[in-house]
Amino acid sequence: MIKVGIVGGTGYTGVELLRLLAQHPQVEVEAITSRSEAGVRVCDMYPNLRGHYDELAFSEPDPQRLGACDAVFFATPHGVAHALAGELLERGTRVIDLSADFRLRDAEVWAEWYGQPHGAPELLGEAVYGLPEMHRERIRQARLIAVPGCYPTAVQLGLLPLLEAGLIDADHLIADCKSGVTGAGRGAKVPSLLAEASESMKAYGASGHRHLPEISQGLRDAANGPVGLTFVPHLTPMIRGIHATLYGRLTGEPGDLQALFEQRFADEPFVDVMPAGSHPETRSVKGANVCRLAVHRPGNGDTVVVLSVIDNLVKGASGQAVQNLNLMFGFDEHAGLAAPALMP
Amino acid sequence: MIKVGIVGGTGYTGVELLRLLAQHPQVEVEAITSRSEAGVRVCDMYPNLRGHYDELAFSEPDPQRLGACDAVFFATPHGVAHALAGELLERGTRVIDLSADFRLRDAEVWAEWYGQPHGAPELLGEAVYGLPEMHRERIRQARLIAVPGCYPTAVQLGLLPLLEAGLIDADHLIADCKSGVTGAGRGAKVPSLLAEASESMKAYGASGHRHLPEISQGLRDAANGPVGLTFVPHLTPMIRGIHATLYGRLTGEPGDLQALFEQRFADEPFVDVMPAGSHPETRSVKGANVCRLAVHRPGNGDTVVVLSVIDNLVKGASGQAVQNLNLMFGFDEHAGLAAPALMP
Amino acid sequence: MIKVGIVGGTGYTGVELLRLLAQHPQVEVEAITSRSEAGVRVCDMYPNLRGHYDELAFSEPDPQRLGACDAVFFATPHGVAHALAGELLERGTRVIDLSADFRLRDAEVWAEWYGQPHGAPELLGEAVYGLPEMHRERIRQARLIAVPGCYPTAVQLGLLPLLEAGLIDADHLIADCKSGVTGAGRGAKVPSLLAEASESMKAYGASGHRHLPEISQGLRDAANGPVGLTFVPHLTPMIRGIHATLYGRLTGEPGDLQALFEQRFADEPFVDVMPAGSHPETRSVKGANVCRLAVHRPGNGDTVVVLSVIDNLVKGASGQAVQNLNLMFGFDEHAGLAAPALMP
Amino acid sequence: MIKVGIVGGTGYTGVELLRLLAQHPQVEVEAITSRSEAGVRVCDMYPNLRGHYDELAFSEPDPQRLGACDAVFFATPHGVAHALAGELLERGTRVIDLSADFRLRDAEVWAEWYGQPHGAPELLGEAVYGLPEMHRERIRQARLIAVPGCYPTAVQLGLLPLLEAGLIDADHLIADCKSGVTGAGRGAKVPSLLAEASESMKAYGASGHRHLPEISQGLRDAANGPVGLTFVPHLTPMIRGIHATLYGRLTGEPGDLQALFEQRFADEPFVDVMPAGSHPETRSVKGANVCRLAVHRPGNGDTVVVLSVIDNLVKGASGQAVQNLNLMFGFDEHAGLAAPALMP
Repeated sequence: MIKVGIVGGTGYTGVELLRLLAQHPQVEVEAITSRSEAGVRVCDMYPNLRGHYDELAFSEPDPQRLGACDAVFFATPHGVAHALAGELLERGTRVIDLSADFRLRDAEVWAEWYGQPHGAPELLGEAVYGLPEMHRERIRQARLIAVPGCYPTAVQLGLLPLLEAGLIDADHLIADCKSGVTGAGRGAKVPSLLAEASESMKAYGASGHRHLPEISQGLRDAANGPVGLTFVPHLTPMIRGIHATLYGRLTGEPGDLQALFEQRFADEPFVDVMPAGSHPETRSVKGANVCRLAVHRPGNGDTVVVLSVIDNLVKGASGQAVQNLNLMFGFDEHAGLAAPALMP
Repeated sequence: MIKVGIVGGTGYTGVELLRLLAQHPQVEVEAITSRSEAGVRVCDMYPNLRGHYDELAFSEPDPQRLGACDAVFFATPHGVAHALAGELLERGTRVIDLSADFRLRDAEVWAEWYGQPHGAPELLGEAVYGLPEMHRERIRQARLIAVPGCYPTAVQLGLLPLLEAGLIDADHLIADCKSGVTGAGRGAKVPSLLAEASESMKAYGASGHRHLPEISQGLRDAANGPVGLTFVPHLTPMIRGIHATLYGRLTGEPGDLQALFEQRFADEPFVDVMPAGSHPETRSVKGANVCRLAVHRPGNGDTVVVLSVIDNLVKGASGQAVQNLNLMFGFDEHAGLAAPALMP
Repeated sequence: MIKVGIVGGTGYTGVELLRLLAQHPQVEVEAITSRSEAGVRVCDMYPNLRGHYDELAFSEPDPQRLGACDAVFFATPHGVAHALAGELLERGTRVIDLSADFRLRDAEVWAEWYGQPHGAPELLGEAVYGLPEMHRERIRQARLIAVPGCYPTAVQLGLLPLLEAGLIDADHLIADCKSGVTGAGRGAKVPSLLAEASESMKAYGASGHRHLPEISQGLRDAANGPVGLTFVPHLTPMIRGIHATLYGRLTGEPGDLQALFEQRFADEPFVDVMPAGSHPETRSVKGANVCRLAVHRPGNGDTVVVLSVIDNLVKGASGQAVQNLNLMFGFDEHAGLAAPALMP
Repeated sequence: MIKVGIVGGTGYTGVELLRLLAQHPQVEVEAITSRSEAGVRVCDMYPNLRGHYDELAFSEPDPQRLGACDAVFFATPHGVAHALAGELLERGTRVIDLSADFRLRDAEVWAEWYGQPHGAPELLGEAVYGLPEMHRERIRQARLIAVPGCYPTAVQLGLLPLLEAGLIDADHLIADCKSGVTGAGRGAKVPSLLAEASESMKAYGASGHRHLPEISQGLRDAANGPVGLTFVPHLTPMIRGIHATLYGRLTGEPGDLQALFEQRFADEPFVDVMPAGSHPETRSVKGANVCRLAVHRPGNGDTVVVLSVIDNLVKGASGQAVQNLNLMFGFDEHAGLAAPALMP
C-alpha cells in the first residue's frame, strides 16, 4: 500500500483519479489540495464519491504533507507543476504530472505555445513522456512523468505503426479529431454551456492548437525524422470521448495493415485493435482505460484511414496516469483499471 | 466461485449484468442465451466487453446447461421465466428473475395487466420480492427472486419511511417519475430514436402503467393497509437514470423528517440519505448500485416532497439482481458493486 | 411599421426576440442595448442572425434613442426595468418587460423574494400581467406589460380551467415542472455546463423558488380565493422546453374535463388542447409560440393530471412578449409568430 | 399560388417540406401520400403541424391526383421516383426528387451502388442536378430536378472555389464529415436509438458510402477533370446538422483564399462565407437553408482546410428542394426560406 497526493483536485481529471483509485487495491489517497475549496469534503463537491471518500477533504497545498507521499499527481493548470515538482522530487516523492508542464522536451517551444517562460527547465532531462506504448521501460525507472494529453494519446497510438514502419508520407499527416466537452475542463465558460454546445458541432483552433507541438514531437520519435501534421480539433456534443480520424498517404504497397496493427500492439494491455472493417465507437471506452483502433484503406487506394477512440479522461488523462503509477511501483498494470466501459 | 447463467442476454439488463459480474470475485458466467444471436460472441455485440469476455458467446437456451449453474438470471420479456423457472428450481438452481413474472403476488392481477394468464402460479408462494431494504432476511433463504422494477425501486425506497411511520395520507400519494430511455429497452422503436426522444420531454402512460400494481403492492406492505397512488412516468432525454419526485400529505406534525430517513436507512449499504436541503442528481448514481434520497417540506407546510434517484439499469435492475445474488450466497453484499458512479 | 428597442439583448430572450421580429412584417428593430457588448454587431455574437441583421450593433442604453421607439422590450436582469420604465413611459414609449420587475402586484412580496426594495412601486398600478388568455382586453390598452415567467405560463394555463370552474381543491395544488437549461440563462455557471447538466436530471429550489409567488398570484385570480401550491422545478438535459405536470384533487364529480378544456381555450390562438389521451411533447412546440395541453383522470379517480408544454423562450418569454406587442398595437395576433415548431 | 404534391411524406424530409411550405406564400399542398399511413392526418403524426395543416391527411399515391399538381416532391426511398416520374412529367407536372434516383448521370454507376438496375434511364438526359450554386440557370428551365444529398451539398460547396480555380491537388481530396442522426432517416434501427447513438461518436462506411460517386461527379464538373476523394462520414450525437471538414493540398501559392471564397459566393443568397478565422457551428444553421463556410490555411503551409456546415434536412434536403421550386416557378428565391436559424 502506497500513499499518494493529488494537487489541484477540483477539476475533472482530479475527480476521475479519485474514482479510479477507489478501486485500486494498493493505493491510499493521503491528500488532495485545492486553494479555492480548502475544507470542503470531496464528496460534497462530487456526490458520486459519497460512501467512498467520506472523510477526505480538500486542503491547502502543503509541500511537507505532499512530500510524505510516495507519489503525487498534478491535475493542475500549466505552470503549477513547474513550481512544485522539484521540491517533491528532492523529498523522494515521485511526480506524475497530468498537465502540459513537462510534455515538451524543448523549453523554448513550450514557452512559445504557453506564453510564459518554462519554470523548471532543469527537470526536462529526466522527465519521461508517459505513453507506455512507446516508453514502458523508461517509465518503470522514472521519477517524473509527463502524462500525455488526450488528443496526443489518440493520435500517436493511431499513427505509430504506420510511421514506425515507414509506410506513409510523414510530411502530410492529417488528424481530424472530435472531443467531448470535458476536454475543455470544468471552467465556467459560455461556449461550454449545454445550451451552447449541445445539438451542435464545430471545429476550433484550426489554425493552431497547443497539442500540435506535443503530437509532432511524439510522431517525430516514431518516424525517426521530421513530420508535418495538420490537426483540426472539433467540439462534439457529448461528455466524454475522443474520436481521432487519421489520414496518411501510402508511399508504396503497404502489405497487410491489419496484421501490422495487431502485431504492433499484441502485448499492449490497453490498446485494442478491432477486427478488420470495424468502426470503433467512443462509448465503447467510456470510463475505461482503453484505446480502440481500426485501420481502413478505402477503395484499396493510396490513402490509409485510422480510427482511434479513447475516453479523454481515462486513457487520455487519469487512467493513463494510474497506468504510469502502476509501472513505476511494480504493480499489476491493470490495478484500478480493470472495469469494463459503461455501455450503454 | 459459483457458476451463473443468463437467459436472454442481448438486452440492456443482460449486458449490464455482464459488466457488473466482470468485477465480481466469486462469480463465473457459464452461459448466456439468446435464440436470435446464438453463436455470436457477446463482445462482438457489446465491444465494451472486449478483453473481458473474449470467448463467451450467446447460445440456445439449454435447460441442462443452465441447470448445472448455481444460479440463473432471467433478463427476458415477461412470460419466459414462467416457462423455465420451475424446471431450474427442480434441478437445484436458484433463479433471479429481472422480468415482471413473479413480482405480483396475485396471479389474477398479473394476468389483467399483462394480458395473458400467469404461467407459473404454483411458484408465487415461494417467490421473494428482491428489495433488500424490505426483505433482506427472506432473500437470504430464497430460491426464487423477483427483482423489483426500476420505477418501483425508486418510489418504494422514497416512500417507505413515511408510510411505515404512518405520517402521510396513504390514499393520495403522487409519484412523478422521470426515466432515461434505456428504461424502454433496446427494441428498435421510433419513439426511442435519438431524433425523436432527444431535446424533448413527455409523459406517457398517465392513465395507467404496468408498474402501478407492483408499486402499490409494496406500498401496501409498508403502510400495512390500502394505498392510493397516482403514478405518472416521463421519458427524459438521457441514457440512464430515474428521478422520482414523490408527494405526500402529512396527517399531523411529523417531527424530524431528516432523522426519520437517516435512521430508516442507517444500515443499508446502498441507500444514501443526502444532507438536509439536497437535490440528488441522477448522474451521481450513473453505473452505481445506489439510491440517493432527499426529503423536503416546502414552506414548512403539510406537503412532504421526497427526491429519489437511481440508475435504472443498476439499482433498478442488474445491480439489484447482483445484490440479491450476494445475499443468497452469503457473499459480501458489495461484491461486484463497489465502483463509484461515473461522473461527469 | 413601428420602431422597437430592446434593452439587454445579449441573453437568450434577447436573441429570441430578434429571431421572431425578423419575421414580423410591421416591426423594425431600431436599437438593442448592452453595456458589455456595445459596438459588437449582433450577428457576430449570434451567427444565426447573419443575413438578417447585418448592420445592427449593440449600443449603450440611451434613454433618448429608446424613447424615440414606439415600444421597448426589457430582456434584462431584475431591477433594470424599475430604473428605466418610468422615463420611457413619460416619453410615450410603451414598455414590455420580460423580467420579473412588474409581475407581482405587491411591492413588499417582490422585495421579500428578490432581496431588494421594489424600485418603481408607483408603476405597479398600471402594469398589466401579460397573459393574453387571462387579460387580453387589458393588454390592448396597456402602456406597461409584465410578461409572465416561463414556469408561471405553463402552470397557469394548465390549471386555469379547473380553478375557474371550482373543480379542484385549491389549497393543495402540485406543479412538478421540468425545464430545459436555457431557463437558467446564458450566464457562465458550472451547473449549466454540458458536462454537468447533460445525462442527468435533478430538482432544484424544492423548498422555494421565485416563480412561486407569481404563479400563486395568478392562480388566486383564477380561483377567486386563496390557493396553496407545491412547486418543484427540475433541470432537464435539453436546450428548450418546459413540461409542467399538474396535479389537483377533484372536489366532486367534474363532468367532461376534455370538453371543459376545449371550451375554455376555443378562441385562444396559441393554446392547443390535444385530443383526449394525449401526452404532449416539448419538442412539438420548439421555437413556436404555443402551449399544448392534455388532461387526464387516471383510473377515473379523484386526482386530475394536466400536462402542459411550452417553449420557455417563446410562449414562456419572447414569443409571448411579441404576442403582447401585437395586441397593444392592433396587429394580427399571429404576426411574427406564424412558423410551426421545429420537429424533429 | 401553385399546387404541389408530396410522395412519401412520413419521413423527416417530408415533414420538413411541410414545415417550410407552411410559410411559403405561393404554394398550397394539395396531396401527401403514404401507403402505410393513408387516412392519418399529418398533424396526428407530427403534432408541430397542428394549427397549420389540420385537414391534410396522408393518402394512397394516385397518379391522377398528383398529376393535377404543378409540382410533385419525392421524399421517398430510392427506386420510387424511377417508377412515377415519367408519368407525372407526361401529365405536365414538374418533379423535384429528393431521393438519389436521378443524381448520378451514369445509370450503370447508379446500378452498381444501389444494387438494382436504374428504373428510368431515359430520363437521365433531362434531369438537372439541383445545386443552384452550380446550375441555377438550368434549374430555372428544368422539368425534373435531382436534389443533391446532404453530404454532397456540404462537400461540394466547400470545395468548389478551390477546384474551379485549380488551386489544389484534385487527386487527393479528403472530406471528413460529421452528421446528426436525422441523416439516417426515421427508420426504427437499433444504432439510431438515443441509448445507442447519444454520448458517442463513430465513423461508418469508411470503406465506401453511396454519396461518394455523387460527390465525385460534382467535383469532377468543378475541377473539369478527374478527382480522387477519401470520404469518411461520422455519426454525431445531435438531431440535425452536418459539419464537413475538407482538406486539400495546395499545388502552388494560392493568393487570398478568403477573397476567393467571398467572390465565388458573392451573389449566392444561401451561402455565407464567414469572416477569416471563423469556425462555423452547425447550430447556426439549424432549421435554415444556409451553408456557412470558413477557409483556413494552418501555419501558412500547403494544406488548406475548409469548414462547411448545413442543416442536413434544410439546405441538405427539403430547403434546397424548395429553393429549386422557387427557381423553377420564378418565385423569390427566399420564399418559404426566410426564417433565421433556431439558436440556441
